[in-house]
Amino acid sequence: MTDRPAHVTVREVCLRDGLQLEDPIPLSAKLELLAAIVATGVREVEATAFVSPSKVPALADAAELAAALGAFPDVEFSALVAGAGGAGRALAAGMRSLEYVVSAADGHSQANVGRSTAESTALISDIVGLAHDSGASAEVIIATAWDCPFDGPTDPGRVVEIAAAAREFGADRVAIADTIGTTTPRRVSDLISRVRPVIGDLPLGAHFHNTRGSGLASAYAAVQAGVTRLDASVGGLGGCPFAPGATGNIATEDLVYLLRDSDIDTGIDLDLAIDAAMVAQRVVGHELPSALLRAGDRLLG
Amino acid sequence: MTDRPAHVTVREVCLRDGLQLEDPIPLSAKLELLAAIVATGVREVEATAFVSPSKVPALADAAELAAALGAFPDVEFSALVAGAGGAGRALAAGMRSLEYVVSAADGHSQANVGRSTAESTALISDIVGLAHDSGASAEVIIATAWDCPFDGPTDPGRVVEIAAAAREFGADRVAIADTIGTTTPRRVSDLISRVRPVIGDLPLGAHFHNTRGSGLASAYAAVQAGVTRLDASVGGLGGCPFAPGATGNIATEDLVYLLRDSDIDTGIDLDLAIDAAMVAQRVVGHELPSALLRAGDRLLG
Repeated sequence: MTDRPAHVTVREVCLRDGLQLEDPIPLSAKLELLAAIVATGVREVEATAFVSPSKVPALADAAELAAALGAFPDVEFSALVAGAGGAGRALAAGMRSLEYVVSAADGHSQANVGRSTAESTALISDIVGLAHDSGASAEVIIATAWDCPFDGPTDPGRVVEIAAAAREFGADRVAIADTIGTTTPRRVSDLISRVRPVIGDLPLGAHFHNTRGSGLASAYAAVQAGVTRLDASVGGLGGCPFAPGATGNIATEDLVYLLRDSDIDTGIDLDLAIDAAMVAQRVVGHELPSALLRAGDRLLG
Repeated sequence: MTDRPAHVTVREVCLRDGLQLEDPIPLSAKLELLAAIVATGVREVEATAFVSPSKVPALADAAELAAALGAFPDVEFSALVAGAGGAGRALAAGMRSLEYVVSAADGHSQANVGRSTAESTALISDIVGLAHDSGASAEVIIATAWDCPFDGPTDPGRVVEIAAAAREFGADRVAIADTIGTTTPRRVSDLISRVRPVIGDLPLGAHFHNTRGSGLASAYAAVQAGVTRLDASVGGLGGCPFAPGATGNIATEDLVYLLRDSDIDTGIDLDLAIDAAMVAQRVVGHELPSALLRAGDRLLG
């Protein structure tokens, strides 16, 4: 276990992972939400995904959204892609940071992209090549890193293999994702202790859902174990359409609260994050699971 | 930071801390809930409080409930008391384990019991004496151990003083309580590192609310720091009527899930805890915040 870092980068994922399960909302509503989250001080935002519009209609406006991102020059925007076709479209739309997902479990991989884990791993090289040829960066996100809704527990060795391949094929970052919100602090520490050594000095991120209540506990364990990048979504908006039972990214404001009170800086203003969660709740039109949205900050005295 | 223990004692508090804010429910409903929680395998249950029935009408049946506890001879039942009068009534009703609450913050202490922290601390000796004279045990619970809704952050030195007094006056156990659900893992570790050394070999417990989402993260940090006893409530039922904004004990089933997957035994059956949470939800007649109640266990493979 390493010392806690003084700074953790929080990537805001409400516009992609947050919205993908929702009924489509207008581009103007997304831009209102984007303005609210940029105002929080966050400097990395997952903007959208270049995937099948028929499978994820909520993100069918990816190219239009990408065209509007120039209004926020201080923010690094990323887009999720599931293959070379999507990567090409993302780069053509001007995206400079790609996230390529490889599911460590074959069951989820087949359900998600119709390929085995090995087939998806083999494509890392192509995606990284496309990104780098365009002067963009590429992150490999290892999905179902702990459990698969179809296959059960994931062999950590499979995650390590993908992480090693990501490094070998020149990826710029690696992240491990608790796609269905099942992991717990001990399992987080254990997996990170195996993944961290095989990726050299690449930044390691983690992505947690709060489906079983342990999301923040797992996020803190990840930080203690050496993760310096965490995904979160204002309001706790989000899930995965191909992972039954997956609901609720960890809420940005709840994470920022926990980290602030652990002397870990995120650069994100807590009150403005709560404001952004309120915007998210309004544009999707239903209650979100965030705790801070209800309780607010503590009395700081 | 100590190694994680192999076993943590979870005390079920749904019947007292869980129900105290609710509209009163019939004794028969409480006994149905009690049977469901005893079936989970839990061996310590906070049954009720002997406090002012006008202030906490939901627990006005404390003596009647106490009379029914003999049906569960394998369970250790405790009752919360706020002073010598309540302690006497609890002992007369047959309770063999008392919890005496001392608020570390004067603001909460005055609102809760109309006494200062110093005045409540001075009473520890009387309560312990009453308990021991009856062959019962007495635990001191230090409320608002991190923050007070009126006074803001609590000076850790005040908590240490109360803990030291508890030991000096012969208390059998000490617990620290996050009464309004504001603490975070780092603050938990810091406080435990100060409290643990002053209470000798007395068992140390902790009580968390999930009001700001960090409840399970704090509970796990407490276990890592040497706490071997945790309070939890099936369904996440509960709050504190005199602490504005306090809602939701950590849910027993969410805690058992996290601990089980960290190789920490609780003796509690997860499926039966979820069943008990369903009973709790039915008898109070509204939705409870537990995560496992919605998501269920993971696929164990």
